[in-house]
Amino acid sequence: MIVRREDGAGGKYMSEFLKEHIFSFFDSKICEISLSEMEDSTDFHSDFVLTTDSYTAFPPIFKGGSIGKLAICGTANDLAVMGAEPKYLALSLIIQEGFAISDLRKIIRDMRDAMDLIDLEIITGDTKVVDSNIGLFINTSGIGRRNSFLEKNLETVRNFREYPWRWVRDCGLNDGDVIIVSGNIAEHGLTMLLARESIDFEIDVKSDVFPVWVFVKEALKIGGITAMKDPTRGGISACLNEMAEKSGVGILIDEKRVPVREDVRAVCDALGIDVFSMANEGKVVFGVIPDMAEDVLESIKKHDENAEIIGYATSEFKEVVVETRIGTKKVLSPPFMDPIPRVC
Amino acid sequence: MIVRREDGAGGKYMSEFLKEHIFSFFDSKICEISLSEMEDSTDFHSDFVLTTDSYTAFPPIFKGGSIGKLAICGTANDLAVMGAEPKYLALSLIIQEGFAISDLRKIIRDMRDAMDLIDLEIITGDTKVVDSNIGLFINTSGIGRRNSFLEKNLETVRNFREYPWRWVRDCGLNDGDVIIVSGNIAEHGLTMLLARESIDFEIDVKSDVFPVWVFVKEALKIGGITAMKDPTRGGISACLNEMAEKSGVGILIDEKRVPVREDVRAVCDALGIDVFSMANEGKVVFGVIPDMAEDVLESIKKHDENAEIIGYATSEFKEVVVETRIGTKKVLSPPFMDPIPRVC
Repeated sequence: MIVRREDGAGGKYMSEFLKEHIFSFFDSKICEISLSEMEDSTDFHSDFVLTTDSYTAFPPIFKGGSIGKLAICGTANDLAVMGAEPKYLALSLIIQEGFAISDLRKIIRDMRDAMDLIDLEIITGDTKVVDSNIGLFINTSGIGRRNSFLEKNLETVRNFREYPWRWVRDCGLNDGDVIIVSGNIAEHGLTMLLARESIDFEIDVKSDVFPVWVFVKEALKIGGITAMKDPTRGGISACLNEMAEKSGVGILIDEKRVPVREDVRAVCDALGIDVFSMANEGKVVFGVIPDMAEDVLESIKKHDENAEIIGYATSEFKEVVVETRIGTKKVLSPPFMDPIPRVC
Repeated sequence: MIVRREDGAGGKYMSEFLKEHIFSFFDSKICEISLSEMEDSTDFHSDFVLTTDSYTAFPPIFKGGSIGKLAICGTANDLAVMGAEPKYLALSLIIQEGFAISDLRKIIRDMRDAMDLIDLEIITGDTKVVDSNIGLFINTSGIGRRNSFLEKNLETVRNFREYPWRWVRDCGLNDGDVIIVSGNIAEHGLTMLLARESIDFEIDVKSDVFPVWVFVKEALKIGGITAMKDPTRGGISACLNEMAEKSGVGILIDEKRVPVREDVRAVCDALGIDVFSMANEGKVVFGVIPDMAEDVLESIKKHDENAEIIGYATSEFKEVVVETRIGTKKVLSPPFMDPIPRVC
């Protein structure tokens, strides 16, 4: 038996692979959040959460960013969606011998610029040079800190109902919670796909890679946020399915309200790829207490006017159901495999 | 300009590479220990330190261990030599498509076994599958916690002199401090070299990879430890030079007292490689207050009878000087490059 591409693709096969070969050895109960819950980050102290991600994206420099910006934002975003302020990073570079210094410096500068947007710092690191054909791999592990925004949010949620966790969890949805997406979807995934496959579609699209803490903290200040997740690998399709399954609710999405550029949708359609399964690197899917949803949306719109309420959680069924633009309903299944490997 | 192998080899070229391309962008002052100090770990809170390391060792399974055991011990050891108890790990696997599941499971089991020796847990993780010719790369980032052993040690050191740091630093040596090495050197590096180059020397040697916290905590309980470092890449040669330079002292080593198996030394000599520059993965170089050195040595000897006092720090010169077995003295220069890449 060998490791298959789909074992790392973020879908159903990956879950099974991790359960069988990883969680069976490592699933301890020393933290509130255990490894097998596959949360975005894990608490190791009442004030801190930890996360890690390796970035193998190809090409390393792409429209709208680079593997460097991705390595900062991706890890910072996994902290931010817990309601934690991204504070400290450990940076590990694995560089192919012969990699151009000019590209490396552009990538490093991109990291610096992304960190400056949210007051994040690299405090420890490691560098290896290898002769494998990798270009550049980057690992960032991040520590996020509890702060007053998170406390404010938890307080407002608890005005409406019991919320047993000390962080914002992706299992936090209840019947009726409003689902918000923070802006246009699918642009990172499409950018990477076009660059990877050298497809020329005459579309001006670039990666949305961005540190979401910039607007997440404003939304937390408003409050009422019961769940957050960043729709990266597998897009909002994987994201909504994971939130629904973990929360034990269904989600009904109104396809008309999902913000996506018409030309992006058209190119995805032409390529035969579901726009809902395309990766994003600067977006958040929020679950919000209904009474507070409009206020939260307004705060996110100050950052991105394309933010939208796209549906709500429901106890009537357990699936993610999409009401299509022509009025029919269909189940949105989680992607089995990643259509475009190594995009994030 | 391109990235060269020596830019990641742990020597002088690597320091220059990091200064020019990394620290110039990332060196912040938010922690007591800054990135450019190149400490084994960095404090981010009065009770916690963080470290990271990527493991690209080849072959992934070798005599005495595997890249899995290495990824647990290497990172745990970078915490332990700060006097921090290794507590939490973030694990990131990058696996080549087609990697044998049986090998992966052996490597994962090795990780579990190594963690069990010191009560360490993986609390968060990430998995990527790629098509580059890497075999398996592992990144582990680790969090170490302040504990009573460390407090006890700092207290005893401060009975003798001022010690301004809250962790055991590799810059902590003063004139007269006794240098102890915790057991036979060079066995990891030689094992990897013989496996890599398929050299058959009829020598029964295996990697020493081991979590040093097992004996470091006992030594801290005795106290008087002013500096610690694990002599990995570049061996005790790189390690002693780094400690001396950072501390602003010289070190005089008695070659006769450096513990190394005769057959290991002979094979290194035959291969033309300095035994002092060979990597170790389960050893520590200690600096100790002279009055307490015998007691610390005794405690380490309970774990490894080959532990030895090998010399002392001195203010008479700034170099690492070796008094050879024939009575001459020579300067032990830090290795410029790694003689065997990808051993740790």
